[in-house]
Amino acid sequence: MISKSTIKLIKSLAVKKFRLKENLFLVEGDKNVIEVLNSSYSVDKLFATNLFLENYSKICKKANFIFEVENTDIKNASLLKTPQSCLAICTLPPHSNPPKQLENNLSIFLDDIQDPGNLGTIIRICDWFNIEHLFCSPNTVDMYNPKVIQASMGSFCRIQTTTATFECVEEIAHLSNALIFGAFLDGKNIYKENLPQKAILVMGNEGNGIQKEIEKKISNKIQIPEFSVKDKGAESLNVSVATAIICSEFKRQIFL
Amino acid sequence: MISKSTIKLIKSLAVKKFRLKENLFLVEGDKNVIEVLNSSYSVDKLFATNLFLENYSKICKKANFIFEVENTDIKNASLLKTPQSCLAICTLPPHSNPPKQLENNLSIFLDDIQDPGNLGTIIRICDWFNIEHLFCSPNTVDMYNPKVIQASMGSFCRIQTTTATFECVEEIAHLSNALIFGAFLDGKNIYKENLPQKAILVMGNEGNGIQKEIEKKISNKIQIPEFSVKDKGAESLNVSVATAIICSEFKRQIFL
Repeated sequence: MISKSTIKLIKSLAVKKFRLKENLFLVEGDKNVIEVLNSSYSVDKLFATNLFLENYSKICKKANFIFEVENTDIKNASLLKTPQSCLAICTLPPHSNPPKQLENNLSIFLDDIQDPGNLGTIIRICDWFNIEHLFCSPNTVDMYNPKVIQASMGSFCRIQTTTATFECVEEIAHLSNALIFGAFLDGKNIYKENLPQKAILVMGNEGNGIQKEIEKKISNKIQIPEFSVKDKGAESLNVSVATAIICSEFKRQIFL
Repeated sequence: MISKSTIKLIKSLAVKKFRLKENLFLVEGDKNVIEVLNSSYSVDKLFATNLFLENYSKICKKANFIFEVENTDIKNASLLKTPQSCLAICTLPPHSNPPKQLENNLSIFLDDIQDPGNLGTIIRICDWFNIEHLFCSPNTVDMYNPKVIQASMGSFCRIQTTTATFECVEEIAHLSNALIFGAFLDGKNIYKENLPQKAILVMGNEGNGIQKEIEKKISNKIQIPEFSVKDKGAESLNVSVATAIICSEFKRQIFL
């Protein structure tokens, strides 16, 4: 059984204020828990079924405290609709400072992304495409939101986000000789642009796109061309989908 | 106010069995409702706030019955966590048969996609990239599931899915001289392949990928190359993200 106070703690970790207060975050889903146990994160408490503990006995030992529980216990404590066979409470890592210089690679700046599913999916995309840094504006959803962790499918263990203002990222770009690109509906066709290996890609908020103040400072505006008949197709693509397509195009050009 | 029996009806439309029984489906979210009013779908009942009815007075007239309601009424009836200012009950269109022949364009076959968010996002991607047909295996989530409609952001009005078995799609491909491509983790690098304009792209289930029986019949296996250090990155990409990247690459090659 999981105690009432622990269940209360787990539920509270859905809220950033409580994550910061407790210095903890929640990891759910078998794949995410296996990845976090294999990572450098400190797993404070692991709640898992007998079967999970048997199957992953070696890595489970990395948790400070292990509790064998039933599926129904996990269901009671879980924030998920369809909980799996384990749940981990982990320690928040120390605040990471933005890097001073960028390597010869692509980084991303997210301008106020609100949907945790989108941020989690973007973290997974960064992992796949070996994106160097993922900068998040101060108003972007927190990466330790359980829904972000969930959507990242373990990639949060390898991709750390850094909270930074656009001005800070602009400074880093300047010091690193990196060009800044922004995704707009009226930018230049990405398929026809020569995209550099070293760059920072700015992606805007779900409803409003990139803020006007930031837009003014971006000289390389790009777009994914729309193929449907004029005025008849989708108005836009989901931000995580657009991020994936643009990352793919940046990386593809390395093969040329 | 919305009557109790109507609220019960609305809630029941989350389930396919009741959608088929009532021959109705639910559209929520202002953008989706505006698009469905502008489409050829028949809107049976529109529930909307005074403000919405004033702002969109012209298109609202297309609904058979219009009910002016309060935001709280919509909240009571809605399946969404954050309901907007309207809600529409629409008539299911007649069953559409698969086409006999394909044009010189890209079509997609989904092999048992389960997550409604993924199907909705893929419908939006099809709309953006002007995909000719979206074939869904009989076990793929129903396109009139309210969560699919929601994620499609109005694109469901322009992209119709057709339920078809892989054998049926294979036959259509044969008659149309279209090649079948499948997305696999061990396929050929999409960036290095010459992708034809006319093709059918097969995308597999979220957890299991493309079924073994179908895999055997696909001669053109492709993959999105992973850029992270070997054995250290994400195991896969989300299926809607992967669909977007592959569609983008097929369409990009038209520019060559």
